[in-house]
Amino acid sequence: MSDVIIAGLGQTPVGEHWELSLRSLAVKAMLAAIKDSGGLRPQALFVGNMLAPALSRQAHLGALLADFGGLHPGDEQDRVHRAGIEAETVEAGGASGAAALRQGYMAVASGLVDVALVVGVEKFTDVVGPEVEAALATATDGDFEAIQGVTPTAQAAMLARRYMHEFKVPTDGLAGFPLTAHANGAGNRHAMFHKAISLEAYHKAEPVSDPLNMFDVAPNADGAAALLLTRAELLPKELQHPRVRIAASASASDTLGLHNRLDPLWFAAAQVSVEQALRKAGIQREQVDLFEYHDVFSIFAALSLEAAGFAPAGQGWKLAADGAIGLTGQIPCATLGGSKARGNPGGATGVYQAVEAALQLQGRAGPNQIAQARVAMIQSLGGPASTAITHILERQGN
Amino acid sequence: MSDVIIAGLGQTPVGEHWELSLRSLAVKAMLAAIKDSGGLRPQALFVGNMLAPALSRQAHLGALLADFGGLHPGDEQDRVHRAGIEAETVEAGGASGAAALRQGYMAVASGLVDVALVVGVEKFTDVVGPEVEAALATATDGDFEAIQGVTPTAQAAMLARRYMHEFKVPTDGLAGFPLTAHANGAGNRHAMFHKAISLEAYHKAEPVSDPLNMFDVAPNADGAAALLLTRAELLPKELQHPRVRIAASASASDTLGLHNRLDPLWFAAAQVSVEQALRKAGIQREQVDLFEYHDVFSIFAALSLEAAGFAPAGQGWKLAADGAIGLTGQIPCATLGGSKARGNPGGATGVYQAVEAALQLQGRAGPNQIAQARVAMIQSLGGPASTAITHILERQGN
Repeated sequence: MSDVIIAGLGQTPVGEHWELSLRSLAVKAMLAAIKDSGGLRPQALFVGNMLAPALSRQAHLGALLADFGGLHPGDEQDRVHRAGIEAETVEAGGASGAAALRQGYMAVASGLVDVALVVGVEKFTDVVGPEVEAALATATDGDFEAIQGVTPTAQAAMLARRYMHEFKVPTDGLAGFPLTAHANGAGNRHAMFHKAISLEAYHKAEPVSDPLNMFDVAPNADGAAALLLTRAELLPKELQHPRVRIAASASASDTLGLHNRLDPLWFAAAQVSVEQALRKAGIQREQVDLFEYHDVFSIFAALSLEAAGFAPAGQGWKLAADGAIGLTGQIPCATLGGSKARGNPGGATGVYQAVEAALQLQGRAGPNQIAQARVAMIQSLGGPASTAITHILERQGN
Repeated sequence: MSDVIIAGLGQTPVGEHWELSLRSLAVKAMLAAIKDSGGLRPQALFVGNMLAPALSRQAHLGALLADFGGLHPGDEQDRVHRAGIEAETVEAGGASGAAALRQGYMAVASGLVDVALVVGVEKFTDVVGPEVEAALATATDGDFEAIQGVTPTAQAAMLARRYMHEFKVPTDGLAGFPLTAHANGAGNRHAMFHKAISLEAYHKAEPVSDPLNMFDVAPNADGAAALLLTRAELLPKELQHPRVRIAASASASDTLGLHNRLDPLWFAAAQVSVEQALRKAGIQREQVDLFEYHDVFSIFAALSLEAAGFAPAGQGWKLAADGAIGLTGQIPCATLGGSKARGNPGGATGVYQAVEAALQLQGRAGPNQIAQARVAMIQSLGGPASTAITHILERQGN
């Protein structure tokens, strides 16, 4: 199989896009990625989305976005006018964007598709209030969890409480995660929040679901991000930016219901997918220059670091408390703000993570640039690591 | 790329499964496919589903079904207990099952996955009445069609009316499609209806959306079907059934909104995907022994036959009227009842079609067996061919 290269990338700012529809949001990112590639034309579109059927009453996003993105071959005189491009939606809860990236990677790596466009999109602001939480709960085990009123936030709170009890973590032990995220969001113009927060602000924050406060829970927000993938041999000779390849893609799942796990504090699927990805890429964990974890809840960031092998069980929070995940730390994380400060665009998150990691490896991360970054690991989670998808990106050449 | 072989298949009867949940239904088909393969263990699960987020408030089916299907490596002493298998959902409206099959095909063909399980599942009977039609309408262009009250059935009725006008088709010109489907359903124990119908019954049937009557519209019903895919070199030497390979897989899309087409009576995406599939398989149209079209509406069957090149534009209905699509006709279609008599399990349909085509090629189609069938073409549509996915299956050896 040939190398799969990220030939272009695009993203909208994350936020409350009241003025943009789901389709407009997605198309903005898609066109930006095509432009960034120098105009490569995709033959396939893979859409990562989690909630459009529930929140926007819109499924079948593949055909919708291929059309509105103007991706069809355009001879209007011909019988086959405006038809042609392959288009499908891939869903795996909060890991939907990463799942779409993985399908795009498989399509291109296999040689079945030459150029694939991957777009992650989520639109929360078409509805308000409890409908959003109900939609998010469709990604949990409906018959055993949602039906009892257990929302994803409540689940995360229970995990955090247990984590604090089990490993003797102080009540503000997770604060390092949002502090790092908000410090990094300041340097990302696509982020929802651009202001660093203090530990004092964390202490004063309103509780959301005890012990999680407002800063432990990423804000649901609208956004779309896109990646254009192709094989190395199909690239134009002159690339505008340094070449980044997808060195590995690995996906694993665990029980959807958190109550079905022997050890809820161990993200087993995350461990499996990280180990598979490292093996496939032929890369040692120590070579990873930055780690884009899935910090939709601060407790998830801690458990992700542990499952990925960057910290022993129960010690992930210390990496945040000690500054090891900062931009100049031992293992920089959430380098452009993560879900907490960039904002959490649901099923688009995995593509945002990949866009941000690629920007780092291409030296385009602006004030947040990690010096000499060559290898990035991205981990996307659906639910409490019910789905865990890991990608490793690597910069080629100089 | 190596040949991708259908190593096992399974299906539940199609019908109103009030006693079975979405997950139970899917797991039945999954376990049947694994058993049929002689017990091959999949490393990846691709779920085709269209409506679970809307009808069952359940997304994230990949992780759910991997767990409930018992697909995880099972060492409960280990930290990685019950985690491991890759699992994602693929959605493309009514073509969701075929889209999942295509992803499974890509995963196995590329060498990234050795054994993939594909399951299509749909559960309609958790809700009743207008909620179902509203859910189905999420697969149309919500902002321009559903919001005006245009349902998929109303769209199909408009297409049928225009077809009759444009090509001077008698008002009962489409009757041959349901007559053939119901004649064939009689021989399929998994079908919802087992009784042939007469032209007289067709004439007397209640209108649904003029000019379509009850027999022009396939009944929404619960069902799940599954296929186990692997590469030729990984198969056990002794196979229980003749070997069937996926000779080609091709997917194309068209505008989601029917009103955006220059010629609504031409299923351009279907044409594109059929031509790509024939080219990829190196097979001539004349070699196709049976065609499983997407007859969720009788007018779709006519337009599918035309787009696939089995009849000129406006003449597809004659193949049904003349008996050419019957079991011993020139191009047998809906050989085990099609969506009309087997029942229409929404996003599971594409997998049912593939299971039925494989049964034909393996000589396991019972009273409906097509003599010496070696090549089958399957076409799955999402919306009015907004998505069109074509697979070609071929029997190998004797």
